[in-house]
This record gives sequence, structure tokens and C-alpha cells, in this order.
Amino acid sequence: MPPSQHSAFSETAQLSKAEKTRLHILEQAAALFNQRGYAGTSIADIMAATGLKKGGLYNHFESKEDIALQAFDFAIAKLQRNFAKGLVGQQSAVERLRVFVTVFERHAQDPPVPGGCPILNTAVESDDTHPALRLRAQQALETWHHWVRKTVQRGIDKRELRASVDPEAVATLLISTLEGGIMMSRLYGSDRYMNQVMVYLSDYVEGLRSQK
Amino acid sequence: MPPSQHSAFSETAQLSKAEKTRLHILEQAAALFNQRGYAGTSIADIMAATGLKKGGLYNHFESKEDIALQAFDFAIAKLQRNFAKGLVGQQSAVERLRVFVTVFERHAQDPPVPGGCPILNTAVESDDTHPALRLRAQQALETWHHWVRKTVQRGIDKRELRASVDPEAVATLLISTLEGGIMMSRLYGSDRYMNQVMVYLSDYVEGLRSQK
Repeated sequence: MPPSQHSAFSETAQLSKAEKTRLHILEQAAALFNQRGYAGTSIADIMAATGLKKGGLYNHFESKEDIALQAFDFAIAKLQRNFAKGLVGQQSAVERLRVFVTVFERHAQDPPVPGGCPILNTAVESDDTHPALRLRAQQALETWHHWVRKTVQRGIDKRELRASVDPEAVATLLISTLEGGIMMSRLYGSDRYMNQVMVYLSDYVEGLRSQK
Repeated sequence: MPPSQHSAFSETAQLSKAEKTRLHILEQAAALFNQRGYAGTSIADIMAATGLKKGGLYNHFESKEDIALQAFDFAIAKLQRNFAKGLVGQQSAVERLRVFVTVFERHAQDPPVPGGCPILNTAVESDDTHPALRLRAQQALETWHHWVRKTVQRGIDKRELRASVDPEAVATLLISTLEGGIMMSRLYGSDRYMNQVMVYLSDYVEGLRSQK
């Protein structure tokens, strides 16, 4: 057995029963919060989805808010794993930006957590109502925004991308268009809008290349 | 008194007391639902915001859902009035599309109903949970999408816009980018992202013109 497989195997095997239960709760709660929102999800809903009693939940978490914050982190970590997998072997800025766009595209119809993009859902619900969740969504979105800025800047430094490209404007355009496209496709239950966004952003990313 | 002012005056004066109460409820409820969502707003919240008792609300509406659906229509009607005002005197497709973009821009920091864009908020909450509200959001978004398609098609017919422009793709790009920009600006409480989106879309709309 190669070392990496061995280590992955041990990691799973070494999870304690408590840790397995905690992950089970987070997986179910992430799906509930992402579909119904924070206000629309009750502790009773989480009990029903996990098959645990109230005491079982409170062995692992302090409150509904504690579950929601950790479930958000759980959803984002899943998203980041998909993203890291997609990036393997992609060196050029244009290819790396394409991976970014493709990972978000999946949120419209086949999201890593049921209910669409957890950042969009959490941002829209929390902006007027829930400062702690809002801060989580701000931090998660800033991580992606920063990644795009850095990727574009490296592409400029290597002269793959035009020097006149503004890394921050690219990050905002990609993220806003993708999140809006996810909203539209999920609202109509149709890939149509997301596909139009993908065609557009694919040309847009290609258009960042310096002329050779 | 000019006829238009006179007619506006009569219209307000002729509102019955019942109709005034109904509009007061809708105005308060639209703000609550737009900020807290459907699940996050209770009948008790609406009673507190309107100063009415439960019986007073149920004189005018059948249920919380009935209030939410009519409050959504109320918010959209407000938005459409802003839009119609902005369009007065704008004949060219490019100028009309700029008005569209500008009306949505205001949703980020100075929305017609507190809480941001009612279509975005309602779409994101209702897509997995509330079919009747979801249908309302679908219809409202389709109205805008159709307006952009029609405006672009007329611009092509008059040779103001390039014949190669796809009206449907323009509608999807404008709406998705604006809604995503609203989400980002509201999440961070900053005009920064919306301003970047506006600069981009302004160039984009200009770029639809046919070469003369």
C-alpha cells in the first residue's frame, strides 16, 4: 500500500465515535441550513435529519448558532477540496481561472452541499440579520476574491496576462456574475442561465491574455 | 393646478381608510420580509412594525403567506416605478440599458425597500422551500429579462446595436452580474464591488453598439 493511501486509511479509522457523530451532524445540518436558511431551520429539524435527540446534539455543539457556524465551515471546506482537486496540474493563470469558474458552475445544479452556493445563501440571509454568520460569509468570499486577485497578478507578472488587467476588477466580475448566475439557474431549476454565464466568462478569461 | 397634479392629488385623497391601512401593512411587511426573509418574519413582527393587532392584519389579509406574496408585489411595483421614471425621454437602446443598470445599482446601498433587491432575496430563500414565493420571483425576474431582450432586439433592428449580439445572453449577463454585485456590496456594506460592476457593465453596454 503506498504511503498516501495508508495515511488516508489510518486517518478515517482513527476518527473517534464522537468525531464521526460530529461530522454526521455537520453534514446533515449544512444541507438543512443551505436549503432552508438559518431562520428556517430549527433544532427539531436537525434532530429529525440526524436521528439524534436534543442531548445528543448538545454533547457536540453549544447552540443552534454554533451548529450553523460550524456547518458553514464544513460546507466551505467541501467546496475548497473540490477546488483544490480541479487545480492539480493547472499552471497557467487562464487555466486556473477556468477551474475557478467551473467549480462555481457546479453549484447551480450539482452543489457540494444541497441547496446551492453556501456563500450566496448565507450572505443574502445574514446581511441584515446575523452578524456572526455574515462575518463567516465575508471571510469565505474574501478567500475566493483574494485567490483570483493573486492568480491574475501572477499571470501579469509572468506576462501571460495583459499588464492593463485590474486583478481586483476581474475578481469582482467573476464572482458577482457566477453568484448571480447560480441564483438565476436555481430560481428556474434550469442550467440555461448558468450555461450563458459560462460561455461569457470563458471568453472573458481568454480575453485577459496578452497578445503574443 | 395642472391636470396631472390635480389627478395625483385626487387619487391619494380618494383612498379609503381601509386601503390606506392595507398599504401601510404592505410597506412595513415588505421591509421586514426583504430584510429577515419569509422564515425570519413572524406575524408578531408585522404586528409590532404596523402597530396593528392580529385581527387588524387578518381584516386585510388571509395569512402570513398572503401578506408575503402581496408585499413582494408591492416591492416590485415600487421598483418598476423607479425604472419607468428613469426611462422617460431615453430612446436609444444603449441609454435604456444604462437606466436598467443604474436602477439595479441603487439596490445595493439605497434600495426602494430596505434590505436590498427583493428578487434576489426572495429567489435565494424560496428556491428550495416556498413554491408560491418562488413563482413570484420567477415572474418578476422574467419581466426584467424580457425587457432587456426586447430592448436589445429593437436596438439591433434599428442598427444601433451589432446584429451579432444575442439579446438573451445580454439579459442574463446584465442581471446575473448586477444581482451578484448587489450581494457582494451588501455583504461587505460597501459600494466598492457594485462600483466595479458598474464600470464593467457600462463598457459592456457601450461595446454592443454597431460600428459606424
